[in-house]
Amino acid sequence: MELGPHSRPAEPGRCVSGSPSAGSAFPASRVPAAGAEPGSRPAAVAAVLPAGGCGERMGVRTPKQFCRVLERPLISYTLQAWRVCWIKDIVVAVTGENMEAMRNIIQRYGHKRISLAEAGATRHRSIFNGLKALAEDQPDCKLTKPEVVIIHDAVRPFVEEDILLRVVMAAKEHGAAGAVRPLVSTVISPAADGCLDHALDRAKHRASEMPQAFLFDVIYEAYQQCSDYDLEFGTECLQLALKYCHTKAKLVEGPPELWKVTYKQDLYAAESLIKEKISQEICVVVNTKDEESVGHLLKEVLKNELNCAAITPTALDHSGGDVQNFLIDQCYSFICVTVLSSDFQAPRKFLTALEESSLPLLYPVVVVLVHCLDFTFVLPTQKMESLRWIRDLAKELKKRNVLLSGLLINYSQDEQKLQESLQQGASIIAALVKERRPALAGQLLVA
Amino acid sequence: MELGPHSRPAEPGRCVSGSPSAGSAFPASRVPAAGAEPGSRPAAVAAVLPAGGCGERMGVRTPKQFCRVLERPLISYTLQAWRVCWIKDIVVAVTGENMEAMRNIIQRYGHKRISLAEAGATRHRSIFNGLKALAEDQPDCKLTKPEVVIIHDAVRPFVEEDILLRVVMAAKEHGAAGAVRPLVSTVISPAADGCLDHALDRAKHRASEMPQAFLFDVIYEAYQQCSDYDLEFGTECLQLALKYCHTKAKLVEGPPELWKVTYKQDLYAAESLIKEKISQEICVVVNTKDEESVGHLLKEVLKNELNCAAITPTALDHSGGDVQNFLIDQCYSFICVTVLSSDFQAPRKFLTALEESSLPLLYPVVVVLVHCLDFTFVLPTQKMESLRWIRDLAKELKKRNVLLSGLLINYSQDEQKLQESLQQGASIIAALVKERRPALAGQLLVA
Repeated sequence: MELGPHSRPAEPGRCVSGSPSAGSAFPASRVPAAGAEPGSRPAAVAAVLPAGGCGERMGVRTPKQFCRVLERPLISYTLQAWRVCWIKDIVVAVTGENMEAMRNIIQRYGHKRISLAEAGATRHRSIFNGLKALAEDQPDCKLTKPEVVIIHDAVRPFVEEDILLRVVMAAKEHGAAGAVRPLVSTVISPAADGCLDHALDRAKHRASEMPQAFLFDVIYEAYQQCSDYDLEFGTECLQLALKYCHTKAKLVEGPPELWKVTYKQDLYAAESLIKEKISQEICVVVNTKDEESVGHLLKEVLKNELNCAAITPTALDHSGGDVQNFLIDQCYSFICVTVLSSDFQAPRKFLTALEESSLPLLYPVVVVLVHCLDFTFVLPTQKMESLRWIRDLAKELKKRNVLLSGLLINYSQDEQKLQESLQQGASIIAALVKERRPALAGQLLVA
Repeated sequence: MELGPHSRPAEPGRCVSGSPSAGSAFPASRVPAAGAEPGSRPAAVAAVLPAGGCGERMGVRTPKQFCRVLERPLISYTLQAWRVCWIKDIVVAVTGENMEAMRNIIQRYGHKRISLAEAGATRHRSIFNGLKALAEDQPDCKLTKPEVVIIHDAVRPFVEEDILLRVVMAAKEHGAAGAVRPLVSTVISPAADGCLDHALDRAKHRASEMPQAFLFDVIYEAYQQCSDYDLEFGTECLQLALKYCHTKAKLVEGPPELWKVTYKQDLYAAESLIKEKISQEICVVVNTKDEESVGHLLKEVLKNELNCAAITPTALDHSGGDVQNFLIDQCYSFICVTVLSSDFQAPRKFLTALEESSLPLLYPVVVVLVHCLDFTFVLPTQKMESLRWIRDLAKELKKRNVLLSGLLINYSQDEQKLQESLQQGASIIAALVKERRPALAGQLLVA
């Protein structure tokens, strides 16, 4: 059992509170019943994530939890989802050969409260090793035994606090609890000859998903008692709690996003969902009155292009504090507007603030420098010549995970031409924001 | 029951033969045993696709089979996968309100041998309606009763001929057959109190997927005999064949691509898989010796960017025949190379041939006009001025589903600069080919 780095970097993203927030899917009335007053934290919760799988079903050499999505390993997304304060310790079980890679991921993306345990040959053995690390009787262990332990897969990155809280509360009451989902396909039982024996009633069965939560003593006892056959071939922790501790797990309906990344198509789906998520917040940086009015026009057309996105036109304090706050609030897209003769001082300051930010950039940050000029008087190609510095700067910024592009908009007196150009500009911005392709950084585009 | 248009356009894509091709996963030795000699066609096979669902699980208003992937309805991809010659008739069951939309899809994308039936209120009722349309006793019906009928979902677009053939052969032998997959999650049975009753042994169960195939008389008999309860709440055709005709279906292991588009993330996955598929073939159009040598350099760097892609540098006969053949062979990406002082006559001819092609363009076609010049002597922005026609032409071509972009490459004497520019150019081309974003068409990019 190994511990994570002692000097941990600051956790990226605001720490989510243990109390259900307004608008959460979690019914506030159930919290007190389960023993946690709103505002209080459920006591002593830890988590175990088995991450020792080899990902053979994915058809690639890299284990799926280490496959990269937007250049970042999948497991880092899952760990980020666990930044809720009320989870004291997170034990990740990885194989010896991936231990160093895992340590680097924790360091690079600033994950907190992570400890590493050695993975076993099977999923159950890995979980058992994680539980052992949390048990009191371990010598030299800095972890303390929790009251409740959550078990989750490293390859289910879309877990939300709401469902974590619900399984923890249910486990406190019932001893065990697990997220379930309706079956997508009918389940059938084959006979020995490879023909159908019978089909199961879809309405009477559920798919068992993760997260699951247990009173620590229940699941630890179950693992200590269970047979080698269970450890080798079993797949279901809830079943172990039932079989060895007679604890009937409460089944909690979870959201569709809980699905497990298993096949190549799941990795694609994960990438698209992550891209969608980080394209929901856009900051339009404007400093002068003129810029503000273009900013508002852009906001309107952008709203249609990126449906439901929250688009905030704002003047930023370029000391860096504002930039930092936007990043903390999960905004990773900045559109800097410059109008007519104004220079690029403000956007340059913004870029410096971004570059100097001490936060680990969890996602590629898209920055589009929008320059508005009347194409009747200045040809876009003429203007481009004076914007060549964007290309050089983009090369530098790409190393910091910032994707910088330039965009010229026809700020025409002709209302129709202006609208057309704004519309096309918004489509281009939407494409850059949604795709986050490093290959397209540094380009000067024309709307 | 309504019939599709009488004057059907030519089927897009080459017709796949009924005999298993070399390298197919279908073991040749099993074909004769099942009654079809290699090269012969299994006799009288038809298909029924229920497409009356409302897609509530997707969380969008459009039924999922009509959701657009790369601007084209999902069901059109599924129908395209059915272009195998040996399937005589395909009956699609759609609701009355979607009948006209479905007819337009058939016309627009040139699907052949499709007939429409009215969908019922449930999946089983839709399938029954489709079967009725194929039964002999229908008055005025141009369809004939098949020996074997395949049932498939409209929202499983990645079905391959191999698995179709395997379920048909198995159905001829056993009366019924269906594709199955290993379970991804453990299946559990809840008790009445919402707690776990028991977990099923994952190794002893399978997920029932599509396609399924039946001797027509077996499944038609089953549907005629089955109860209203079955039609209302049942989900499994194999179970009906078992219950009412005592026919034990043969279970056939299918590939992971058979999965059903159910949730939003599945639609994202489908889009990525389709994009990946159509990015596998790239035609690099070169006409002169100089262009040929750049073409070969580009091919090398592109191979790394788009791993496994088949990249063919070739001079095209611009009469249109070659272009047509590339499209028929599922090549939807063209890189036209122009070197130094050569004009854009050849690419222009190519674009005309593409525009005049009579084939329905099933996917957006990406065309990148690559212009090589030495940036030491000519500034990219100078050259761009003379390439403004690309922007105007791109606007026109976009309406035909052709996405045209320009790309300048630094054809420097300095080997390192040349390599850097080629490398960046390849990354840009890969991004354009992979993403196929209409918003980025018409741009002049610089590598």
